[in-house]
Order: sequence, then C-alpha cells, then structure tokens
Amino acid sequence: MKPKYPIDSLTIHTDLVLPSETNPLNNLFGGELLARMDRAASIAARRHSRRIVVTASVNHVAFNRSIPLGSVVTIEAKVSRSFRSSMEVYIDVWIEDRESGGRAKANEAIYTFVAVDETGRPTEVPPIEPQSDIEKIRFDAALRRKQLSLVLAGKMNPHDATELKALFL
Amino acid sequence: MKPKYPIDSLTIHTDLVLPSETNPLNNLFGGELLARMDRAASIAARRHSRRIVVTASVNHVAFNRSIPLGSVVTIEAKVSRSFRSSMEVYIDVWIEDRESGGRAKANEAIYTFVAVDETGRPTEVPPIEPQSDIEKIRFDAALRRKQLSLVLAGKMNPHDATELKALFL
Amino acid sequence: MKPKYPIDSLTIHTDLVLPSETNPLNNLFGGELLARMDRAASIAARRHSRRIVVTASVNHVAFNRSIPLGSVVTIEAKVSRSFRSSMEVYIDVWIEDRESGGRAKANEAIYTFVAVDETGRPTEVPPIEPQSDIEKIRFDAALRRKQLSLVLAGKMNPHDATELKALFL
Amino acid sequence: MKPKYPIDSLTIHTDLVLPSETNPLNNLFGGELLARMDRAASIAARRHSRRIVVTASVNHVAFNRSIPLGSVVTIEAKVSRSFRSSMEVYIDVWIEDRESGGRAKANEAIYTFVAVDETGRPTEVPPIEPQSDIEKIRFDAALRRKQLSLVLAGKMNPHDATELKALFL
Amino acid sequence: MKPKYPIDSLTIHTDLVLPSETNPLNNLFGGELLARMDRAASIAARRHSRRIVVTASVNHVAFNRSIPLGSVVTIEAKVSRSFRSSMEVYIDVWIEDRESGGRAKANEAIYTFVAVDETGRPTEVPPIEPQSDIEKIRFDAALRRKQLSLVLAGKMNPHDATELKALFL
Amino acid sequence: MKPKYPIDSLTIHTDLVLPSETNPLNNLFGGELLARMDRAASIAARRHSRRIVVTASVNHVAFNRSIPLGSVVTIEAKVSRSFRSSMEVYIDVWIEDRESGGRAKANEAIYTFVAVDETGRPTEVPPIEPQSDIEKIRFDAALRRKQLSLVLAGKMNPHDATELKALFL
Repeated sequence: MKPKYPIDSLTIHTDLVLPSETNPLNNLFGGELLARMDRAASIAARRHSRRIVVTASVNHVAFNRSIPLGSVVTIEAKVSRSFRSSMEVYIDVWIEDRESGGRAKANEAIYTFVAVDETGRPTEVPPIEPQSDIEKIRFDAALRRKQLSLVLAGKMNPHDATELKALFL
Repeated sequence: MKPKYPIDSLTIHTDLVLPSETNPLNNLFGGELLARMDRAASIAARRHSRRIVVTASVNHVAFNRSIPLGSVVTIEAKVSRSFRSSMEVYIDVWIEDRESGGRAKANEAIYTFVAVDETGRPTEVPPIEPQSDIEKIRFDAALRRKQLSLVLAGKMNPHDATELKALFL
Repeated sequence: MKPKYPIDSLTIHTDLVLPSETNPLNNLFGGELLARMDRAASIAARRHSRRIVVTASVNHVAFNRSIPLGSVVTIEAKVSRSFRSSMEVYIDVWIEDRESGGRAKANEAIYTFVAVDETGRPTEVPPIEPQSDIEKIRFDAALRRKQLSLVLAGKMNPHDATELKALFL
Repeated sequence: MKPKYPIDSLTIHTDLVLPSETNPLNNLFGGELLARMDRAASIAARRHSRRIVVTASVNHVAFNRSIPLGSVVTIEAKVSRSFRSSMEVYIDVWIEDRESGGRAKANEAIYTFVAVDETGRPTEVPPIEPQSDIEKIRFDAALRRKQLSLVLAGKMNPHDATELKALFL
Repeated sequence: MKPKYPIDSLTIHTDLVLPSETNPLNNLFGGELLARMDRAASIAARRHSRRIVVTASVNHVAFNRSIPLGSVVTIEAKVSRSFRSSMEVYIDVWIEDRESGGRAKANEAIYTFVAVDETGRPTEVPPIEPQSDIEKIRFDAALRRKQLSLVLAGKMNPHDATELKALFL
Repeated sequence: MKPKYPIDSLTIHTDLVLPSETNPLNNLFGGELLARMDRAASIAARRHSRRIVVTASVNHVAFNRSIPLGSVVTIEAKVSRSFRSSMEVYIDVWIEDRESGGRAKANEAIYTFVAVDETGRPTEVPPIEPQSDIEKIRFDAALRRKQLSLVLAGKMNPHDATELKALFL
C-alpha cells in the first residue's frame, strides 16, 4: 500500500465546554474529554485507513491543566504511526483564552485503533512517513510504546523489547 | 491518617448499552466506556479520600472485547494504591450474557485521581492496605506504573526507576 | 421452573448527580431519578428472567428527600416477587455524605416488568423465594399491591381483593 | 386564595421518539417516558401555583401500550386537585398514527408536586374547581388516592381512610 | 387532494430550559432552540402531509429576546402554506413569567419541509386554506419568501420574482 | 479598533453522525445540524471579537444534501463581515466519503451574532478585511443580507435598502 503522511489524517475538533460537562470545580470532566478525544482520534484513524475503525487501547493520558466551563477547546488528532492493521493516533488538546486569544496546551493523549472490515475482522492499513521533526520523534517513540503495551499485556518478554530496554540501560 | 482497605472504596455501576452509545459495528463506543469508567473511578477515589477528586491520568487501557448494543455492563472500581495526594484506581469491566447469566471480563483500566480542597489544591489522602492476593499484586504493580508515568513525563531519570528497571534486567 | 432468590437479581448502580440533571433548587430532577431507577430495575428483572423485559407499571414512589448536585447516588434493585410473566422490582435509593461517608435512604420505589419473547409476547418467569426478613415482608406486600393495581385498573372487583380488603377491616 | 380551573394549568408537550430513547424492542423506554411526564407535569403544577415546584410522588402508572420509534407522542398534563401545598397532576399520553392521523391513548399517570418558596419550604397553593365530568371524577378520586398514599406511608390508620375504605365495603 | 387548514397541523411543545441548555449568560443556547423548533415544526409538517418529512431550509430567524434558565418555553408550529411537495411551517415561541403567568413572544421562525416517500423521493402534499387574518397574511407572504429563496439560490431570475419585486418598487 | 481578517476566526469542527442524531431516514436531523453550526459559528464570532457572543439571527439555510448516519461532517465557520457590535458568520458544511476520502459540500448557512459585555449589553467589535475572492464576495453580499433582514423586521423601508433594491431593478 502507498504510504501516507500524518498531515493526511489531521482532524480538528473545536468546541465549547458546556455546563453539563463539568465537575464540581466547574472544570471539564475527565470522562467527557476522553470521549471527545476518542471521537476525533477515530476520525483521524479512519482518514488514514479509509476503513471502519475501533478503539483498541488508550495509552497514558495526563490531565495537566484543568479546562474551565465556557472554554474553547481544540482537539487535534493525527496518525503518528501505523502497524499492520493498527494505528497509533497522537492527540494534542489546546484551550484558548477569550480575551487575549492566546492558546495553551492542556494535555496530550495517545489512542490506538484497529481497522476492520464490515464483519469486524482486522484489515491492513497504509504505512506512514513522518515529515516534521515532531512527527519523526513521535513515530520513533511509537515503537517503544507498542513494545511497552505488549509487555504489559504479557504478549512480549521484556528482554525482547529491545527499543524499550534501551531506555533503562 | 488511618489506613483504609480497597474494599472500602468499591464502586459498582451496572448499566445498559443504549442505541445512542454505539459505533457503526453496533458496539459500545470506546469514548462512552472511558467516560463511564471515569465516573465510577472518581466515586471510588472520593470514597477513599472523602475529598473532591479530579482525574489526573489514565493509564494504558486495552479494549479487548467489544460490548454489543443491549448488553448489561458492570464497572467495578477500587482504589489499588494511594500516594501522598493521589490515588490509583483499578477498574474491571464485565459484561453478562442475558440467556446464560454468565459474566465475562470485557476489559481493565487504571485511572489516577488527585484529591483537592475547595480551592483545587492537592490534599493528603489515607494510605491503603491491600487484603486479597489480587489487591496485593495490583498494589505492588502500582509503584512500577507510577515510575513509568514519571519517566514518560520526563520527571524521573529512567535509571532511578529501580522497580521498573528490574523488569528489563 | 426452578425458583431463584431475590439476591440473584440484585443490581447496583452508583453514579454522580451532574449539573444537567438538576432542578432550579439544584437538586436531582424527579424525572431523571425515575429514569435511572427504570434502567436499574429493568436489569434486575432481566437477571431474574433472562428475558427481554419491558416496564409494565410504576407503583407509588415517594420523593422524601431531595438529592443535591454533586451527590453520589446508589440505586439498589431486586426482584421482590414474580407472578406468571411479571416481576415486581423493589428499589432502594441511597445518598452518601462525602465527608463522613455516611449513607442515608433517599427514597424507595416499586416497578413492575413483564418478560417477553423476541416478538414481544409475555413469557413465563421463575418463581422467587424470599430469604431475609425484609425480603419476606416485601414478598407478602407484593400480592396486596398487585390486587390494588388490578382494582385501580378496573380488572378486579374490590370485594375479591381479599388481601387488600383485610387492611381496611 | 382565588380558585382556579384545571384548564388553567393544561400543558401540552408533543415530541418525537428518537432512536436514543428506545429499548431493545424499538419502543420508547419506560424511563424516558417517566422523565418527559415529570417535566410536563411540573409545568402544569407551576402554572397552577406560580411557584417553584418539586416532585413529591408518582402514583401508579400503567404502561398499557408500547410506543414505537418514530412515533409522535403527546403528553397532556392538568392539575386535578390541590391540597394545602401539594397538587395532584393527571397526565394523559397519546400517540398518533402518521398515515391515518388517528390518535390513541397510550397511558395515564398521576404525579404529585409540592409548591415551595426560594428556600425550599412548602407554600400554599390555590384551590381548584373541576369543570368537565372527567375533571370532576378525577377530583373526587384524588382524595382516595391521597388517603391511600398516607396509608401506604404509614401516616394514616387505614380505619380513618373513610373515602378509601368505602371502596371495599 | 383535499385542502386542509393550518389549525389541523398545530403542534404545541411546552418544555423547561434546563441547565445543560444554557450559554455563559445563563440563557437558552440559540442552537438548542433551533433544534427544538425543528422537531416541533417537523411534526406540524408531518400532520399536514401524513408523510415522512425532512427539513429543507430555515428562513430568517431572529432571536429578539433571550430566554433565561428555568423558563417555561412554548413552541407553536403550524403549516402556513404548502407547495407541491414542500410546506412552509410558521413557528411562534413564547415564554411565560412564573409569578404573573403572563406570556411574551420570544421569537418567530420559518422552516420549510419536504414530504418524501420511504425511498426519500419528494411526494405531493395537500393544499392549505388559511382561515384567520394572521394565517392569511402568512400565507400570502410565503410566496414572496419562496421567491426570495429561489432568487438567493440562483434558481430564479430576480426580474421574474414578481411578488417580491413589488416590495421594492 | 484594528481590523482583522476572516481567517483569524476560522473554526473547524469535525465530528461523526451518531445513531442518536438521525431522523427516520437515517440521516442527520436538521435540528442537530443547526445546533452544531450554532456552536461552531459562536466560536468564530468569539475569536473575532474576544467577547461573549449571543446568536442574533439565522439567515436562510438550505439543506441540499442529506448527511447519512456514520458520516464524518466538517463544519467550517468564519466571520464574513462585522458591523458595529454584530458579526455575520458564514458556515460551510462538508461530508467526506470514507472509502474515497473525497469531500462534498453538504450545505451553507449564515448566522449573525452580537458581542456583549458581562451584563449582556452590546459592545463594539473590530472591522474585518476580506482577503480571498470568495471572502470579498461574501463581504459584499453581507450588506444586502443585513438590509433584507432590517426590511423583513420592519426596521427599514424597502425603498431605502439601496443595495438590495439594485438586485431587482
């Protein structure tokens, strides 16, 4: 299959934080943000694969900055690496200040999707060629994350996770 | 502070999968499950700490088994380990077969919450004492996960992550 | 059919009260609680019958205590008695205080469900054997409630409602 | 206070049954109908009292006829009787056939509301004067229902429930 | 086809403004009102045509008066004119004051629907005969609006829009 | 105030069509699309003005193409012209084909917003300078639409609507 670029799958979802989506501190609920990121990331995976896609896993997501009621939140999702039938999607979340118009990073997240056919069976997806520096860094780290995920699931012996192991030696 | 047991925070949330919560394959949306788990886990963290709690991070979540429309889904959340002001909550998700009544594990997830006071500042939480075997295993693994999370966030040198490093040597 | 116990159908649904579910006094809307109870009770009826179930009626429900925004609400539903194809489900609703962890009864409700086959036709359900004292009291009262319901629907002559009549004599 | 007529509080709520509001048989969920009736009935109680109102209880509600996806459902709510600070609201639910335009009764329900002031304390409401035959029948029956409700709550001795007792003798 | 009257399609939808439906000024979101009006208007068009109907266009809608949280909002929709397979629906929106019971016009809107068969193909609808003065005025203006809509869509030469042109000469 | 460009307010909202948002033909409900466009357009108006904004009116919106369940829908909103305290926002809606990745225009819409201060009083917004050809065409047409809107509201004599009148002569 012909390789594609991360930019081909870029999905932008800008929306408001409404009162029904906040916690007792009047900030966006973690669960609501997880759901919005899942929807945006699934569209990115679909744009890359042109297939039905299902969420396979969510990697470590840190909620560094709370997102207050009334904020404008922008979710940007791009496929960072593809494997045979799975795709890692990297998500950046931004909030913007109404008065200054300034934009600040609220958090990052990484989701993995699998492309499936109409019967739900995994199906092949195109390879990806990172272009920008940040895309290259994320592409390389994706392999370590895949190994980590296999190790944690007990599907890979930690000693075989060469990329990952290198981190600790 | 007086230690508590994981069972003290056990939160059970049993609900249906409705048509509005499904993807094109007629299974529960990943994002909807992430949101439900966040709500159940936040109640577990609140029961442990008796404080307002906010989602700090979501660890690796694998969606191993799809959950079809009309299923009865049970989410069970328990605090698995507490640190100074943060709590790791371990979540087990079960679906049950209507005809046989049999129950199958659909997936597991781990969320971290921080207890805060009314102004949003982190505040101390009780320690935890695991009781059952599985609680002890999860308690021990929680430290490795915390180190992993600090390493991934660039807040800990991999060489200092002694618990984690041991996995690979 | 082999009898079952009320505990076999116990369904627990613990959730938060979110801002979108409150009335102008910042308490949980009656209608939202009615809907949540219907979902939990339908799962209990389904667990007892292992059939598709539909709501047949709602008995007298009293809202004795208002449930404020941010509360943790636990709904516990159990089948209290079964008739040929219908089941009475008894629902207890509890709220808990965040700071003390104490739990208070918010209200009780009784719903009736009918088990149906795939075409919507009523189908037989197992009998039930109450175990605890409270289960026995609810089991006995269920017959009076059924008679009351038939009398109110004009399907039973009040003079034939022997169990019910005894109350007033 | 000056008496009002039931017609003064008539509230009509016509809406569609959407896919997200259906059960596995593709009919309107009991819980969703209970919630819609609560909203319409609370407006009727508010129109009668011109006060904030809260749901106090739901009387026996029978779901006689299932309401399929795509139906047009009309809920009509009117105060049937008022007591010192409480109001009984009688609700009729109709569905209409798209092709013939014919209207059929789907079910009836009775809710009770209490009028409160800004601090949540019960406050007096106007008396009501039934006009049509059906309004008179419902007005009379409301007293029996109130007695029944007090008896069931253990707040009235069945022997003092004269109106109710008469039914069985 | 036999003509019908506007009153035959009158659809009334009275509902509350809930917290989840408000903007940062605590008034009903424009988007939520647009959605409610669409639902009510589609029922009016369906009552006139007894067909499946789909929204074809929304005419100029002015939001003259903000609708605060907790308001009772009444939407009244009636078919104002029908063409071959399309229907113009005129919508009046009222809010009422809880304390005085007084009713004030919040805004007006005009939607156009097309009646379709099960395959989505446009199908004929009955003509309409306006009765009241206001219905006659709206019936006449509907033709000008249709011409305007055709002109704006580039489907009619402004010089042929005789009814509309007369306005400016 | 310093002028801004339309591109400064560009707001992109890409999302899925879920089962709960469809009509009986399995296409996106008109009302749901109106609500999504309102949210995206209000963000564009807010980005231009850096103020709280409220929907003032919706211009003629044509639903030319139905949007099926499961579609990826992209809403792009940009301020097309600003007046003293109001802004016209032009919205383009696209759907994309999953298999080919091709993008087709589904419809266009025009909303008007007013910028307000914290007390809800209209407040001045920056002027706008169109750059591209299409932005210039939309900027010019905005004046005619404003006149039309004033004429339809009875706030301008058709004979004074010079820009508009020119269309018909």
